[in-house]
Amino acid sequence: LYGALLVEQTQISHRLITCQQLSAFRYLFESESSTYTYLLADTNTKEAVIIDPVLETVDRDLKLIKELGLNLTVAVNTHCHADHITSTGLMKQRVAGLKSAISKFSGATADIHLTEGDNIPFGRHSLTVKETPGHTDGCITLVTGDQTMAFTGDALLIRGCGRTDFQQGCAEKLYHSVHEKIFTLPDECLIYPAHDYLGQTVSTVGEERKFNPRLTKSMEEFVELMNNLNLPKPKKIDISVPANLVCGLHHV
Amino acid sequence: LYGALLVEQTQISHRLITCQQLSAFRYLFESESSTYTYLLADTNTKEAVIIDPVLETVDRDLKLIKELGLNLTVAVNTHCHADHITSTGLMKQRVAGLKSAISKFSGATADIHLTEGDNIPFGRHSLTVKETPGHTDGCITLVTGDQTMAFTGDALLIRGCGRTDFQQGCAEKLYHSVHEKIFTLPDECLIYPAHDYLGQTVSTVGEERKFNPRLTKSMEEFVELMNNLNLPKPKKIDISVPANLVCGLHHV
Repeated sequence: LYGALLVEQTQISHRLITCQQLSAFRYLFESESSTYTYLLADTNTKEAVIIDPVLETVDRDLKLIKELGLNLTVAVNTHCHADHITSTGLMKQRVAGLKSAISKFSGATADIHLTEGDNIPFGRHSLTVKETPGHTDGCITLVTGDQTMAFTGDALLIRGCGRTDFQQGCAEKLYHSVHEKIFTLPDECLIYPAHDYLGQTVSTVGEERKFNPRLTKSMEEFVELMNNLNLPKPKKIDISVPANLVCGLHHV
Repeated sequence: LYGALLVEQTQISHRLITCQQLSAFRYLFESESSTYTYLLADTNTKEAVIIDPVLETVDRDLKLIKELGLNLTVAVNTHCHADHITSTGLMKQRVAGLKSAISKFSGATADIHLTEGDNIPFGRHSLTVKETPGHTDGCITLVTGDQTMAFTGDALLIRGCGRTDFQQGCAEKLYHSVHEKIFTLPDECLIYPAHDYLGQTVSTVGEERKFNPRLTKSMEEFVELMNNLNLPKPKKIDISVPANLVCGLHHV
C-alpha cells in the first residue's frame, strides 16, 4: 500500500508540474506570417525560453517577459524560417546573457547548435530536441520533459504539415520524421505548431494520427501529394533565409 | 496528520481537475473580427460548451467538435456582439439538442437567459455567470467552477477593455464590473477575452490588476479616457446587432 501510494504521489507531482508549467506558458501570434511564438517559464526560478520569436513583435514579447519578471535564457528557432525574420539576434542585443539556439543542420549561426537528444533546461523543466527534418534539413521538434507538449515547428501543423519543395525539402524524410519522432509521443501530448492559417491553436498527437489529411496517407501517396502542391514561393524567402542564417541580423 | 493529508489530496484533486479540463480546452481565432471562440469539454462525459462562436468559422468549429467526439450542449455568447455575427443560431440548426444562452439583459432571443450566479454545467464541470455590464448592459463573464479561468468577453481585454460609446455603453459601470467581479478573482486565474488585436492570447487577473493601462487608473481618469477615445463605429454594427438579437439568424 505504501509503495502504491508513493507511485500515485509521483504521478500526481508529475501532473502538478505540468499545471505549474502551463501557468507560465504563453503563446503569441504574429498575423502577417501567421506565426506562433511560445514562451515557457519555470514559475519558481523565473528562467524562461522563447521559441520562434518574430522580428515584428519583438517589443510586445520583451514587454511581456519584463512584466512577468522572467529571465529569458534561451531563444530557440525550430528551423531557419523562410516566411519571416527571427528576432533572436535583436533579442540578444537587448537581453543580457540570452543565448540563441538552432539545429546544427540548419547551417545558421547561433550560440548553441542543437542535435538529437539535447536538452534546453529552464529551471526544473526542460525541452528535449528531436530532429524532424523534411521541411528543411535543420528542423527540430522540442518536447517538454513530461511529454505533455511538443513544439513541432513546420514539421507537423494542425491537420497539415510544412511544404517540402525548397530549402532541402524532402517529403519522404518529413514522413519518416513525423511518424517516427512525433507520432510515437503519447496520444494526449499537445501539438503546438509554428503556424496556423485557420485560427486553430493546438492539437494532440492522437488527433493528428487520426485526422491529419496528409500524414494519415501511405508514404507513397504522401510523397506524390507533396511533390504536386505547386505552391507559390514564399514572398519573403530571399530576405528571410539570409537574415535567419545569422539570427535575423543580416539587415543590420 | 491524517486531516492534513486529506486536505492536501483535496487540493491535488482540485488541480488535477483543472489539468483534465485544460486537456479538453480549445481556443480558436477568427481573423476578420479578431474574435476568440472557446470550446470547453468534460473529457469523460464528452459534454461541451462553446463560447462566442462566429458565423464565418462555423464549419471549422463543428468539424473539430465532431472529430473530438463531443456532445455540444450549450452555445453561449458573452454579449450581443457588434463586430461579428454569432453562429449560435446556425449551430442550433445543425446540432440536435443544442441550446443557446445569453444574458437576460442583452435583449436577445435565446433558449437560456442568464443572470448573476447561474451555472452552465458540462459533465462534472461548470461555468458560473458573473454580470459585468459596461461595454453593453448584457455583458457577462463566465468563470470555471475552480476559478482558474475567466472568459471575460469585451469587459476585460488583455491590457485593455471594451469600448463604452455605443449599445448602452457606460464607462463607470464597466469600471465597477471589472473591479468588483473580475479583479476579485484569484491572481492566478487565467483571463480569456473575446478579442485580441495584437496576437496576445491569455493573461491573468494578477497581471491585469498590475499592468492594464486603463483599469489601473482611478475611476474618474478611466471615465475621462473612455469618453474621449473617439473610435470609428464598428463596420458591421448595423448588420451584426440585429442579427445577434436573434442568435445570428436575422439574415435567414
